[in-house]
Amino acid sequence: MLCVRVWRGLSPLCRGHLSAWKRSQSRTAASRLDLSGMYPPIATPFTPEEDVDYQKLEGNLQKYAKIPFKGLVVQGSNGEYPYLTEEERVEVVKTVRRSLPTDKLLMAGSGCESTRATVQLTEKMAAAGADVVLVVTPCFYKGKMDGRALIQHFTKVADSSPVPVVLYSVPANTGLELPLDAVVQLSQHPNVLGLKDSGGDISRIGLIVHKTKTQDFQVLAGSAGFLMAAYSVGAVGGVCALANVLGRELCELESLCVSGRWEEARGLQQRLIEPNAAVTRKLGVPALKQAMEWFGFHGGACRSPLQPLTEAETQQLRRDFSSNGWL
Amino acid sequence: MLCVRVWRGLSPLCRGHLSAWKRSQSRTAASRLDLSGMYPPIATPFTPEEDVDYQKLEGNLQKYAKIPFKGLVVQGSNGEYPYLTEEERVEVVKTVRRSLPTDKLLMAGSGCESTRATVQLTEKMAAAGADVVLVVTPCFYKGKMDGRALIQHFTKVADSSPVPVVLYSVPANTGLELPLDAVVQLSQHPNVLGLKDSGGDISRIGLIVHKTKTQDFQVLAGSAGFLMAAYSVGAVGGVCALANVLGRELCELESLCVSGRWEEARGLQQRLIEPNAAVTRKLGVPALKQAMEWFGFHGGACRSPLQPLTEAETQQLRRDFSSNGWL
Amino acid sequence: MLCVRVWRGLSPLCRGHLSAWKRSQSRTAASRLDLSGMYPPIATPFTPEEDVDYQKLEGNLQKYAKIPFKGLVVQGSNGEYPYLTEEERVEVVKTVRRSLPTDKLLMAGSGCESTRATVQLTEKMAAAGADVVLVVTPCFYKGKMDGRALIQHFTKVADSSPVPVVLYSVPANTGLELPLDAVVQLSQHPNVLGLKDSGGDISRIGLIVHKTKTQDFQVLAGSAGFLMAAYSVGAVGGVCALANVLGRELCELESLCVSGRWEEARGLQQRLIEPNAAVTRKLGVPALKQAMEWFGFHGGACRSPLQPLTEAETQQLRRDFSSNGWL
Amino acid sequence: MLCVRVWRGLSPLCRGHLSAWKRSQSRTAASRLDLSGMYPPIATPFTPEEDVDYQKLEGNLQKYAKIPFKGLVVQGSNGEYPYLTEEERVEVVKTVRRSLPTDKLLMAGSGCESTRATVQLTEKMAAAGADVVLVVTPCFYKGKMDGRALIQHFTKVADSSPVPVVLYSVPANTGLELPLDAVVQLSQHPNVLGLKDSGGDISRIGLIVHKTKTQDFQVLAGSAGFLMAAYSVGAVGGVCALANVLGRELCELESLCVSGRWEEARGLQQRLIEPNAAVTRKLGVPALKQAMEWFGFHGGACRSPLQPLTEAETQQLRRDFSSNGWL
Repeated sequence: MLCVRVWRGLSPLCRGHLSAWKRSQSRTAASRLDLSGMYPPIATPFTPEEDVDYQKLEGNLQKYAKIPFKGLVVQGSNGEYPYLTEEERVEVVKTVRRSLPTDKLLMAGSGCESTRATVQLTEKMAAAGADVVLVVTPCFYKGKMDGRALIQHFTKVADSSPVPVVLYSVPANTGLELPLDAVVQLSQHPNVLGLKDSGGDISRIGLIVHKTKTQDFQVLAGSAGFLMAAYSVGAVGGVCALANVLGRELCELESLCVSGRWEEARGLQQRLIEPNAAVTRKLGVPALKQAMEWFGFHGGACRSPLQPLTEAETQQLRRDFSSNGWL
Repeated sequence: MLCVRVWRGLSPLCRGHLSAWKRSQSRTAASRLDLSGMYPPIATPFTPEEDVDYQKLEGNLQKYAKIPFKGLVVQGSNGEYPYLTEEERVEVVKTVRRSLPTDKLLMAGSGCESTRATVQLTEKMAAAGADVVLVVTPCFYKGKMDGRALIQHFTKVADSSPVPVVLYSVPANTGLELPLDAVVQLSQHPNVLGLKDSGGDISRIGLIVHKTKTQDFQVLAGSAGFLMAAYSVGAVGGVCALANVLGRELCELESLCVSGRWEEARGLQQRLIEPNAAVTRKLGVPALKQAMEWFGFHGGACRSPLQPLTEAETQQLRRDFSSNGWL
Repeated sequence: MLCVRVWRGLSPLCRGHLSAWKRSQSRTAASRLDLSGMYPPIATPFTPEEDVDYQKLEGNLQKYAKIPFKGLVVQGSNGEYPYLTEEERVEVVKTVRRSLPTDKLLMAGSGCESTRATVQLTEKMAAAGADVVLVVTPCFYKGKMDGRALIQHFTKVADSSPVPVVLYSVPANTGLELPLDAVVQLSQHPNVLGLKDSGGDISRIGLIVHKTKTQDFQVLAGSAGFLMAAYSVGAVGGVCALANVLGRELCELESLCVSGRWEEARGLQQRLIEPNAAVTRKLGVPALKQAMEWFGFHGGACRSPLQPLTEAETQQLRRDFSSNGWL
Repeated sequence: MLCVRVWRGLSPLCRGHLSAWKRSQSRTAASRLDLSGMYPPIATPFTPEEDVDYQKLEGNLQKYAKIPFKGLVVQGSNGEYPYLTEEERVEVVKTVRRSLPTDKLLMAGSGCESTRATVQLTEKMAAAGADVVLVVTPCFYKGKMDGRALIQHFTKVADSSPVPVVLYSVPANTGLELPLDAVVQLSQHPNVLGLKDSGGDISRIGLIVHKTKTQDFQVLAGSAGFLMAAYSVGAVGGVCALANVLGRELCELESLCVSGRWEEARGLQQRLIEPNAAVTRKLGVPALKQAMEWFGFHGGACRSPLQPLTEAETQQLRRDFSSNGWL
């Protein structure tokens, strides 16, 4: 696989050409970007007027630079991307690009509901400095988003994208799961690198790894709650909201899993499940941002209609961290 | 209530002032726009290159002008609004406004995920000629879109909207239902006129009518499948995808219900359930557009990733119309 | 159709023979039992030791005798039938039979998970005096209970049953809905009289009436929340938990619907939705039994594991009745 | 912990007394039965007339005796227990007891809908030779089966059971999950040994292990699809339908996991996911029994209403085994 540093040394245009070149070649392992490792899907700080607070964003980036992340995901679900304008989405990626050390990957969310909008935003994200784009399943017409529609959508996006594509399945938000057969078929596309799976069905994750074995297809766990289990069945990394808060600990868990120290990993994994559930499924992005404040990062308020936590929710959140020894 | 013609005679700015004035007054029945009647949530025709086909749109509008609709809904779910850019969304409304007879209401969808984007698009829609805006529930962070968040969202939008607001609950697409208690509370807002309910839970619809009785709150059935039942429990109209195809028939059903001719209504209602299911839940917007072609309207292809019907689906669609005597 | 009094005058054996005879004849309207009307699905009172309290049961029956019900349903979901032994199930039916005026129908639940058990219990129920059996969909292996399996199940039961069969679909408890196509096919069986539909999808109910029009198939609404709407689209009666509490009022609602006095019906229907939701979906059988106590019937405790209401639930229940003018 | 051989040497009565004694003592690890290992939840063979075929059952038992299972589960979901009469349920357990080597555990399903029926059947199962009972969550009144009701149910059953109790959560069949907080509270009951979790939410499984750490509470994976992942987060064994077919392979997977050979385990686990899905979620008990036939066991038909596989389903089943190298 290509290491990040070499890949990053190329201009977006060069990377586009390289991807095009790759598509014309028989694919070899050497030509694939290595995604393995831990990524925080970073939050977007806002001012009290709900504008993007680029200064606070940079403050967080400086802190993240000291943690052994493989890279950052910008505008995953935790980045409140559906609440940003297209201009803001691109500007945030440019800001991250300027701060990010050259040996770190920048994976940018570029998914929209229509194929044409996704194609266009993907190009802008590549031009803004994204090494890889993360493309969520369209979901509004969920009754019609079957394998046929989704394969066509992702194929068109991957065909035209200047940078490699990571598929993104997050049923808790979209109400649909990218079907396994579609994943397997899309894994054969030379510009589709892997999948971020936030659904957490561990049998499915194992089966995807199994059925894409010959494709050098890379699966990333989309939540810290099942990170160790995902590693056990063949995932190569994680994009975990909780990494915004407990980044070092998640990198340590990753390292224990990769080096086969499962007994040590288990205890650490178990202590991370409740805090993870609190900042995702149970209390969502407002809780993630509250916990970031407690751990020295800039969190702050969400854009409306996301509401601040109630007092009872804040206490619940604190308990979920403290009862596991994190506060 | 204000009749449409008077309301339409006012400029958007005047209408804004009037709404502001209304909000400062004790509300009376006379000050409310009368929504009762039938509305097709119009489809958006595209060229083969997937651009909006304004010419074909106008062709449809001329045909709809001859049907006794109360008005048109532009950019309900069947208008593929999540696939349009903001500029396209506004331009389509302007186009409809130019064609629409002045005694017909123009209800424009202006819902976005964030509150600030919804506020801004609402203003643009009013300026483009919308008499009323239809505001869908935000849904991406569905786990956090509880009553508290949704009441705050709709209140902010209604507070600033120059035109009255109709709430829009469509769980098949959004994966969430606007909670009944939130509907009841929002019904007290002077700039919230009513609700389009596409969920089809008829006990809920009856209860909403019951609990908003003192508010002159108007409930529209969001689908032809339960139109008669909705009338029976107190709804005052319908926004029905099938009205794009069988508009006269739905206006007749409405008229039978309003005039208490339930026996005649029943037979007609029963024959409409299967065609309605075919163009909504079962086969979606591509089927709606196919059926429009059969009945003399411009339908055509959807924007990607929505796919054309397969041959088998087209046959199923035809059967669902023909077995009920419509083809 | 056969009126109840004539049907009841026949012994179970005769009724079995008559059914067999009917199956060998072309079916005519005259040969069908008329189900139209209102039925309470009666609750089963227990002693403090959780034994069936037959004395209290008879007390309730005497009170129900004065209400113009079409009959009683014994061992619908509200009868806690899954908590009764087979012996108790049969004994309760015998008890009801002894008390019930001869012009009232006795519809007894005889559904079990296996086909053979359902066949056997159906025979026992007929022998115990049931005029009709109500057969719920088996549901434990819900992933395999498709149309094919359910059609075979109900066909075997109807083939061998000495009395007519009413299908019973109650997804809130079983987690599955009897598919529409299966209902339509089963409606052609000479010993299948109708359907109790507790799912409340009013489009489905209208479509079932429409597609079984030539079969003299009778649909009963399974809940008071959508009773009027069900009548509007063609249902002929209701089996409503709330009829255990507000029996006269539901009979009045039925009468208003049947005689086409929809305006009067609407106000009454609306006031019944919240009390109905309270004793079914929201708070369940324990709430039904509590409300029965308030209205002069014997309710009492449920069998474990059903728990008594908490104090907060009891207050909620009271509010749902009192705010609608019933307490 | 008590090894099986010693435990089995005691009469049911003794075991009951021992349990009672245990409840009066402070619990120590030594007093707990060790459940760790692999169990097939055995299928129930039927004759062509759908009677239990005890001879074929014994044929299977002889074959299973040669596989290093920890024991057998009789009347888990795959045993079609909801289709057996109480007499049959007890008789099947007696038959297994006679055949089973004394060093193997017999875990018998004794769950019923009512608490009193579960208490009684639990006693009969212990008397028939069960070492442990497996008690499924009651589920018909699922809206009322909250933590409070389920804790009371399982507590009463465990209080009176002569043998230890294993909780059983299987949402695919019951439509509800035993809440995590209820599991944690019940883990403190001296006669509750562990949990069979068939839901497959691996974060939940890890969290249950974590939160019951001080209780010597044993978690068994309820399906082969997530067996390795469950081991990775702390489960101690598995009750896997697929063990009826590929018992040796699952015992090998268990052994690889227990001995920390995760790399070897991974490849084996991945090849088992599709066959497992085929005999459970996708095609159910009829597929399990068909696959048993292919691998030399007696499977045969299910009791009605479970239907035999269609030809297309049989081919799908074969592909799911053959494409993974098992046929």
